[in-house]
Amino acid sequence: MELLLKDIQAAKKRIAPYINTTPILSSSLLNTWLGHDIFFKCENFQKIGAFKARGGLNTVAWLVETGQKPKHIVANSSGNHAQAVAYAAQQFGIPATIFMPEYSSQVKIQATRSYGAKVVLSKTRDLTDQLVKEAAQEEGTYWIPPFNHAQVICGQGTAALEALTELEAIDAVFTPCGGGGLTSGTLIATRALSPKAQMFGVEPLNANDAAESLRMGSIQRLKAIPNTLADGAMTMAVGDLTFEYLKQLDGFYEVEEDNIVYWTQWLTHLLKCRLEPTCAMPMQAVVEWLRSQKTKKRVLVIISGGNMDQPTTQKIWETDCLTSVPVIP
Amino acid sequence: MELLLKDIQAAKKRIAPYINTTPILSSSLLNTWLGHDIFFKCENFQKIGAFKARGGLNTVAWLVETGQKPKHIVANSSGNHAQAVAYAAQQFGIPATIFMPEYSSQVKIQATRSYGAKVVLSKTRDLTDQLVKEAAQEEGTYWIPPFNHAQVICGQGTAALEALTELEAIDAVFTPCGGGGLTSGTLIATRALSPKAQMFGVEPLNANDAAESLRMGSIQRLKAIPNTLADGAMTMAVGDLTFEYLKQLDGFYEVEEDNIVYWTQWLTHLLKCRLEPTCAMPMQAVVEWLRSQKTKKRVLVIISGGNMDQPTTQKIWETDCLTSVPVIP
Repeated sequence: MELLLKDIQAAKKRIAPYINTTPILSSSLLNTWLGHDIFFKCENFQKIGAFKARGGLNTVAWLVETGQKPKHIVANSSGNHAQAVAYAAQQFGIPATIFMPEYSSQVKIQATRSYGAKVVLSKTRDLTDQLVKEAAQEEGTYWIPPFNHAQVICGQGTAALEALTELEAIDAVFTPCGGGGLTSGTLIATRALSPKAQMFGVEPLNANDAAESLRMGSIQRLKAIPNTLADGAMTMAVGDLTFEYLKQLDGFYEVEEDNIVYWTQWLTHLLKCRLEPTCAMPMQAVVEWLRSQKTKKRVLVIISGGNMDQPTTQKIWETDCLTSVPVIP
Repeated sequence: MELLLKDIQAAKKRIAPYINTTPILSSSLLNTWLGHDIFFKCENFQKIGAFKARGGLNTVAWLVETGQKPKHIVANSSGNHAQAVAYAAQQFGIPATIFMPEYSSQVKIQATRSYGAKVVLSKTRDLTDQLVKEAAQEEGTYWIPPFNHAQVICGQGTAALEALTELEAIDAVFTPCGGGGLTSGTLIATRALSPKAQMFGVEPLNANDAAESLRMGSIQRLKAIPNTLADGAMTMAVGDLTFEYLKQLDGFYEVEEDNIVYWTQWLTHLLKCRLEPTCAMPMQAVVEWLRSQKTKKRVLVIISGGNMDQPTTQKIWETDCLTSVPVIP
């Protein structure tokens, strides 16, 4: 089934009572320095601190709406999806169990528990995958996957739906890409609402399975857990549903770690936001794209989330990037 | 002249076209953990990234309104006041010169220049003080001081005016205190708009000149440049105007450096905001105050700003405070 704007509009209506309509921020200093207008849709101010709340809530609300309300919801995640599913299940009074690797950040484990979910910790990611599969066999249990699910994709697309309804004449849209849920939902919304806008996905060079998949024409899997600060884009492979949308992008960028650090510092400073390295990544793609543009452009960047633990924060701020002002390279 | 609510209302009207009405944020996790409702008026999202824009703009706009438009504006500051005056002067097309010590953060020097001001760097703070005094002698030149000025105080009070107009039934208001401009303006607004609310000032224990002054009944000056991460509260002494308001506070708290680090990490994490250590400080006072409260309280905290350089950020995130969830002590 092809997903359409109306599916994202339905998702927006469904989740509206439970989520924030997040603000769009700009930096006048950044716009002056670059000579273009950049708009940031700030999903770090979303419930649970990331866009993932949208997909989780849409899936649970859709199950309830279509008479499929489960007795129990399960998910496996080391990241924002864990908190999103816990929060979504809590809103509908459905018990949830989240399987997390024990190396997940304490901050995310705490928050998942605070949203009322039972958290089961395992030694490895593989073990969480096995346990969630077993749990999902139980009658009345529904397993919400992190990205490869129509209702998850539609939920994630509501961020771009809000932004492109609020902003006019956007020339290009950039999203970070992990499993491709946010990128797919954003693509559907962008093509319908801003058909003239170009749309790009962005990945860490060190975790470039989506870029490789697009080059090869088939889904490629990372061979080892990647070494990148952009932990929201560490997914080993995109899904069959999301890959179909990624193929429709106007381009795809791969970003080096140094540039991820640079833009995390600068966007934090300019927007006065806490943001994950994952969502700073697209700014490098933006300046590379702007280099070839001859007129002033209006660009939308989806800031995916703001959940970051202390060790990552410390790594990001090890060196001082704020001494070197952003310019078009 | 005693400043009244109407003076702050006049300031608000005067500066409205040039400043942001900043958002009030809350954290449902924090409120659950503490069992009270805490509201954060986020002046880190103010123009120039701090409440100082309000006082700077009100002073310049008031000069223009009262037929005293200067030919040249000067100020001396190593911090947010530099940017505030530069930004305010720029809005009215008045040339500005800001005298800054050369050890000021690069980030603040850059921004002050970006707002169109001429920046004069000197080796020491004393030298900037001398140079600004000389410059202020020139005919047609106006020197905007950082806090001890009626129009600066009224400008700073507009943050609380906005917050207490938006929020009902606030039981207590907390502000960080440096020179006392924000605290004084907030006190005037609070007494008029929420007469039942208690109002507190907060200072670093390592820079407790205001607390000492209140204990002694006369203005005390720090004997040396203080060692505190709360660089917005490093002022050597309060002013004669602000001291009169500080005496009317319901209490004053002195906060240790460890607690400043703790709350900077936690508020950054929970509010998804970039914030200066100075504005995290009041949360320690809030939890100490809440310890003695027997019913659920609604507390307003003024978040003063979000301008922080890399070395300070690195110091804040050296250890991991996020493993220990906030509680009432």
